[in-house]
Amino acid sequence: MERKTIAQLYRAAEQKEGPVKVCGWVRTLRASKSLGFIELNDGSCFKNLQVVFEDGKVEGFKELSKLNVGSALMVEGTLVLTPDARQPFEVHAAAIEVEGPSTPDYPLQKKRHSVEFLRTIAHLRPRTNLYSAAFRVRSVAAYALHKFFNENGFVYAHTPLITGSDCEGAGEMFRVTTLDMQDPPRSEDGSIDYSQDFFGKETSLTVSGQLNAECMALAFGKVYTFGPTFRAENSNTPRHAAEFWMIEPEIAFADLQDDMDLAEAMLKSVIGYVLEQCPDELAFFDQFVDKGLLERLNKLVNAEFSRCTYTEAVEILEKVKDRFEYPVYWGCDLQTEHERYLTEQVFGQPVFVTDYPKEIKAFYMRLNDDGKTVAATDLLVPGVGEIIGGSQREERLDVLRERMQEMGLKEEDYSWYMDLRRFGSAKHAGFGLGFERLIMYITGIQNIRDVLPFPRTTGSAEF
Amino acid sequence: MERKTIAQLYRAAEQKEGPVKVCGWVRTLRASKSLGFIELNDGSCFKNLQVVFEDGKVEGFKELSKLNVGSALMVEGTLVLTPDARQPFEVHAAAIEVEGPSTPDYPLQKKRHSVEFLRTIAHLRPRTNLYSAAFRVRSVAAYALHKFFNENGFVYAHTPLITGSDCEGAGEMFRVTTLDMQDPPRSEDGSIDYSQDFFGKETSLTVSGQLNAECMALAFGKVYTFGPTFRAENSNTPRHAAEFWMIEPEIAFADLQDDMDLAEAMLKSVIGYVLEQCPDELAFFDQFVDKGLLERLNKLVNAEFSRCTYTEAVEILEKVKDRFEYPVYWGCDLQTEHERYLTEQVFGQPVFVTDYPKEIKAFYMRLNDDGKTVAATDLLVPGVGEIIGGSQREERLDVLRERMQEMGLKEEDYSWYMDLRRFGSAKHAGFGLGFERLIMYITGIQNIRDVLPFPRTTGSAEF
Repeated sequence: MERKTIAQLYRAAEQKEGPVKVCGWVRTLRASKSLGFIELNDGSCFKNLQVVFEDGKVEGFKELSKLNVGSALMVEGTLVLTPDARQPFEVHAAAIEVEGPSTPDYPLQKKRHSVEFLRTIAHLRPRTNLYSAAFRVRSVAAYALHKFFNENGFVYAHTPLITGSDCEGAGEMFRVTTLDMQDPPRSEDGSIDYSQDFFGKETSLTVSGQLNAECMALAFGKVYTFGPTFRAENSNTPRHAAEFWMIEPEIAFADLQDDMDLAEAMLKSVIGYVLEQCPDELAFFDQFVDKGLLERLNKLVNAEFSRCTYTEAVEILEKVKDRFEYPVYWGCDLQTEHERYLTEQVFGQPVFVTDYPKEIKAFYMRLNDDGKTVAATDLLVPGVGEIIGGSQREERLDVLRERMQEMGLKEEDYSWYMDLRRFGSAKHAGFGLGFERLIMYITGIQNIRDVLPFPRTTGSAEF
Repeated sequence: MERKTIAQLYRAAEQKEGPVKVCGWVRTLRASKSLGFIELNDGSCFKNLQVVFEDGKVEGFKELSKLNVGSALMVEGTLVLTPDARQPFEVHAAAIEVEGPSTPDYPLQKKRHSVEFLRTIAHLRPRTNLYSAAFRVRSVAAYALHKFFNENGFVYAHTPLITGSDCEGAGEMFRVTTLDMQDPPRSEDGSIDYSQDFFGKETSLTVSGQLNAECMALAFGKVYTFGPTFRAENSNTPRHAAEFWMIEPEIAFADLQDDMDLAEAMLKSVIGYVLEQCPDELAFFDQFVDKGLLERLNKLVNAEFSRCTYTEAVEILEKVKDRFEYPVYWGCDLQTEHERYLTEQVFGQPVFVTDYPKEIKAFYMRLNDDGKTVAATDLLVPGVGEIIGGSQREERLDVLRERMQEMGLKEEDYSWYMDLRRFGSAKHAGFGLGFERLIMYITGIQNIRDVLPFPRTTGSAEF
């Protein structure tokens, strides 16, 4: 008999009585003298399958009734519709084969475990409801992103992770090397001789694929990256990981308005797709993790995002500055408390804040005509604050050069980047979306360690 | 007027006369005294759009006719059907605005450039036919993979790139560190004190996500990874890069036969999708890069792949051993010349070779009952040799332990991996597909440097 997944059985068309074969792991088991019930999960969906086994109808009833949680089983039996029960059907076992037993010291016994404990068994925690739901939502959201960009004519660009540009934020980058740390080759003056390193120079793990994505956008028109990114920031917070995934679209012949339109459409599309594909998972999060989650997500999908300038935002915030820990003034970097106040209290929905002071933004952002602000935007969402940061890029060679000088960047390090402004420059824009932030937003999970299957954070690179 | 992409114009439904607005870059331009022709490309598809501009009908004819190749333009005009010409339509310009000019020293003048030269301008080469086609096929193939796995109930698992396991092939791994290379902290015995490194221990860039993927497969049933992988191998060949992308599916309650079925279905699905979505690109490769490519791809999609054991393969090869540079005997690792002979001359199509001697394969592969071979498989394809390597994994704790001892691996380094065999072990299998190898196979491109947008190889990490 061909094996079916539990997800297949739950599909309406498959819900008919008859013989079935399923494989999966025991989530719970209870048995009386002659009758037993197993909640079986095979990972194909959030739901379990109830398997009923009865003495005399299945061989080895006694051994089966003592099975430990976590055991892997192959079950053959009959699907029986149970219209009056909590679940629409169950399987009456005719034969149960133990693929792999479990033991009483299996760490995932049927009780509630703390997420702190579950993080110490990252290799087993995907077998729990919480992480099973989180990582499935992660997978579905990733697919939704690819689907959205594909349907909108974007080219998926794989930008490199190992980078030789030591110009930007070097202090927060991981070094990549094959030199012997114990006794590295040195130049005459005693400094490390990186010309003998694998790539013939100093290399690090990238903090963004944007500059490379710009090269691709000025050939393909619309591109996006979706891959790992690294930050060697020594910050042990619930929101920071050393290795995380980032989405960076980049569009040519486009300005900041187009950029915001794209971000809004993308976010609605992804969240709409997850709402549609993961109702069980989201209901679980809404019930056990973040009450009100579903309402917030449904509202976002149907909202028209607000837009306001940084200058307007500061005016609003200054009126209530006593509420905040951090000071508010024109020129300040907005803190999460400010951002959340704006999106939650003032606008009551997602809001794009635009046109930030150039001093607090990167060199590549397009200078506005006022000479003081740049065409940047952050998207703020309720419950989180900033979820997307983007900008129109400076496409004018002379302005870019001036900004680089102001910020002490060496032209020779960016000659290829400047070439994009020399040869067929076009206005273009893009943004970055931290994928884990998105998953936290969609699930209501508050710690980034719980949306990454095997998180890498300060002091921790287990498994 | 709303801008259209050139891809949109080529769609049958859009091919009607009327006003249009397009943006793009000049691929070629020729002009007489009063009439000019521009081949415009906007990256939305392989094809160019012919723009006709005429003195008196468009402002600035003289300046336009002197535009350099590579200039970025915004064109408004009328789409005119040209049923008798080479292209089905052209645009008669009413206004042409130069978004960004180019210069006579633009490196991509209209002549054939060597791929060696083009590699030195990786930031501009996506604007050429060859690389535009290669990177679009790359993008479409990536999407096809996600689509295939999604439609078949797989969960996309993001496995970590930074790894603390220094057990496997450490010599070929890149170290990741934030220690001061110049003066690293040392223990009393003079050795580097890695407890002070970012993660509190030695870390490297992963060579495979498989072990992590196994954890996920034994929770979700079917998972796959698709992400960057690293090899610090000092091999300057056309087939090796230090950073490349890999696909690693892993399936539970499955054996080697299921694994091969999956690999075959996946490969046919991806190649079928690219054949369907990229006819222009593949026709280009067939004509200019690898004559016979299309025939080979179409044949693969419709073939039923052959299967033979390693032992049978060696018997076949021993009969013609004089043809080969490398010796053939039972126990030898098959070389590319052997692999290609098998798939090209003997089977004339893709072939899975199975059940290799355990000595030449990894510790986690399932030992066959003969005690000599393991349930491993390599898929060999014409023109390339090995493209996929997979195996059924050893699910029996005692056998795994014995194999690890034989190979000198420490149990404490793998305790979490062994837990998967302690708690609900199930037979499972998986394989690895090097994404660049796949793209080389689909495009006929012979050098891995030409299918990666910004390749990282020994001595080179530019851009």
